[in-house]
Amino acid sequence: MQSRVFLDYASTTPLDPKVLKAMLPFMAADFGNPSAIYNEGLKAKNAVREARTSIARHLNIRPEEIIFTASGTEADNLAIAGVVNAWKKSFIPHIVTTNIEHPGILELCKHFEKEEVEVTYVPVEENGIVDPQKIKQALKPTTVLVSVMYANNEIGTIQPLREISRIIQEFKKTQYVALPYFHTDASQAANYVDLSFQKLGVDMMTLDASKIYGPKGVGFLASKRGVSLVPLIFGGGQERGLRSGTENVPGIVGMAKALDITQSIKEKESKRLRNLQQYFFDGVIKISPRVSSNGDLEKRLPNNVNICIDGIDSEFAVIKLDTEGISCSSASSCINLSEEPYSYVIDALGKSGRACRSSSLRFTFGRATKKQDLNLTLLKIKTILITQ
Amino acid sequence: MQSRVFLDYASTTPLDPKVLKAMLPFMAADFGNPSAIYNEGLKAKNAVREARTSIARHLNIRPEEIIFTASGTEADNLAIAGVVNAWKKSFIPHIVTTNIEHPGILELCKHFEKEEVEVTYVPVEENGIVDPQKIKQALKPTTVLVSVMYANNEIGTIQPLREISRIIQEFKKTQYVALPYFHTDASQAANYVDLSFQKLGVDMMTLDASKIYGPKGVGFLASKRGVSLVPLIFGGGQERGLRSGTENVPGIVGMAKALDITQSIKEKESKRLRNLQQYFFDGVIKISPRVSSNGDLEKRLPNNVNICIDGIDSEFAVIKLDTEGISCSSASSCINLSEEPYSYVIDALGKSGRACRSSSLRFTFGRATKKQDLNLTLLKIKTILITQ
Repeated sequence: MQSRVFLDYASTTPLDPKVLKAMLPFMAADFGNPSAIYNEGLKAKNAVREARTSIARHLNIRPEEIIFTASGTEADNLAIAGVVNAWKKSFIPHIVTTNIEHPGILELCKHFEKEEVEVTYVPVEENGIVDPQKIKQALKPTTVLVSVMYANNEIGTIQPLREISRIIQEFKKTQYVALPYFHTDASQAANYVDLSFQKLGVDMMTLDASKIYGPKGVGFLASKRGVSLVPLIFGGGQERGLRSGTENVPGIVGMAKALDITQSIKEKESKRLRNLQQYFFDGVIKISPRVSSNGDLEKRLPNNVNICIDGIDSEFAVIKLDTEGISCSSASSCINLSEEPYSYVIDALGKSGRACRSSSLRFTFGRATKKQDLNLTLLKIKTILITQ
Repeated sequence: MQSRVFLDYASTTPLDPKVLKAMLPFMAADFGNPSAIYNEGLKAKNAVREARTSIARHLNIRPEEIIFTASGTEADNLAIAGVVNAWKKSFIPHIVTTNIEHPGILELCKHFEKEEVEVTYVPVEENGIVDPQKIKQALKPTTVLVSVMYANNEIGTIQPLREISRIIQEFKKTQYVALPYFHTDASQAANYVDLSFQKLGVDMMTLDASKIYGPKGVGFLASKRGVSLVPLIFGGGQERGLRSGTENVPGIVGMAKALDITQSIKEKESKRLRNLQQYFFDGVIKISPRVSSNGDLEKRLPNNVNICIDGIDSEFAVIKLDTEGISCSSASSCINLSEEPYSYVIDALGKSGRACRSSSLRFTFGRATKKQDLNLTLLKIKTILITQ
């Protein structure tokens, strides 16, 4: 049997065998609860502490500034709800975000709009990148939070975080206010970029282990000391009282290992994938004038190709390619369950986006992706989707 | 090196090797995201569906009535906050619970009291069991939820759920109202009791995998169709929109397997542990008149022994026993992080409890516990803690 070609690494990544190896002891002999004060508990507590320290080093923050969660979605929710709930008794809080954020941000914002929270969804430009000046125009004295993703999960466009951070700092200085905080969801970006809080100028960052060759069911919100947060989950007071529940020790250990590995190879892997990305883009555009690309081609993750094929139905195309052994996506896998039968991200890309929102395909590469995989995919796109 | 004696199974349980075996394929080759519509995604989706169906059978409910979470604490929070947030716009919701619930219930209730929610904490009797008549007296037309744990995590006392359910049914009938819902946290009980919704008469049930020889980082809230819930976590719309975030596929598969195993051996294991429990109780009481027991001795989980040793400091005793290779607990491991330096559960047991709240020890047995472990523990209690 020929092996399949998996080109949906933005949806989820396979577990790195070295990560599994790091997790296994904590799924067997070392099963203690980190809250217990005896031997088995202390072993687990130390493992969590080491993981926290290792992650903090990559983000250039303090270990205690990491709040482990069960997913990037939970971390996004903690960032938004945590800040809103900390301020809602004093005034009507205002959030600034973009119209192409992950559903973990957008769905919560929509919910909060029904609960006396004000939200500004700054539309991105036609290239899928937000104009920092439009963020600036959206800021108000009641703005408690600006949340802009590091890189988009569907089109891979990288947002100008540093510029936005400078605008927020300037706003705070001229207005004499301590708000808004600046949050970014870096889940999609973490395999390829620098995560230093200092360099980016962010106050909070979301990460998800299942996107960086780590385990499913773990993520974290990194949140600078001084950020006021109300917990989403109350209980035994774990994670400095900000996220209760017995720590997922193997998951946390695995996430630290996964981040360690992926950050250590990010330059080399980015370069390799950048070449494959260029190769695939060039190849797919050449197939037919019906093919066009979505999103900026430069300010983009090296593993993301998103194309529109005029006249096809995305979902049908995904299923056709699946029968040929190729896995790709019609939109973020996080919105297949939502009511909209099209990609809201592609829809946000102006006039051409609206035309392409139901006929676009996302191919995202990963560590196992090779040129021959792309050749096969190009062939199948040509023979199955275009010339039929 | 002599192996240690672990007597803190209420804190966490080791992973059953058969559970790990069931999980491993989904931590390697079958890593797909259940939301994806291609081959790898469908495999993962099917695995989650099978796990859901298997768990539903044990609870005698429909598969779609299970909402997977990351812990029992999250499930408790979803039950309480989910119901409160569904009704708070219509009136000031009232919750009835007991004063010995898990922190996942109590801490959230305390938080909600600051947010215009009314809570009645019904005190348990001196035996650690709640009087159903006192629950009855607490019910009001605005009561949206009654939450009473199946068995207590510190003293193992089993609560009269069926009687409470009958009282709630009667209340609803005579008042012509559809509320309150009845929730139980069955995390501690699940290894030893029947979980059938019909028999218990509950509407919602919390379970945690890490207490039933399953993985850490997974739990669920089972919630009958018709119960109105607002999600805690918004996003991609997984779990029927009630708990967003990529499914923890290996964790979910592991939890189903763990529940399957533990429910299939519950009669035999209960009987075995009941004998050990009696043996240990008898032995420890005989050591000194300074030793007394906490909580009802009959209506109690078969794996729980909780004693007061007059004059000792619990935490000091746990550390002393730890150096002798024995792991036990001074209180729930979920409250070691809280501000109170004593057990609120023991404190709730009337006059004798208040005297014992800082000098009690919990020993909880599990599948690996043998008589010789208990003999060693009895010896050490005698020589290290009492005759010093």
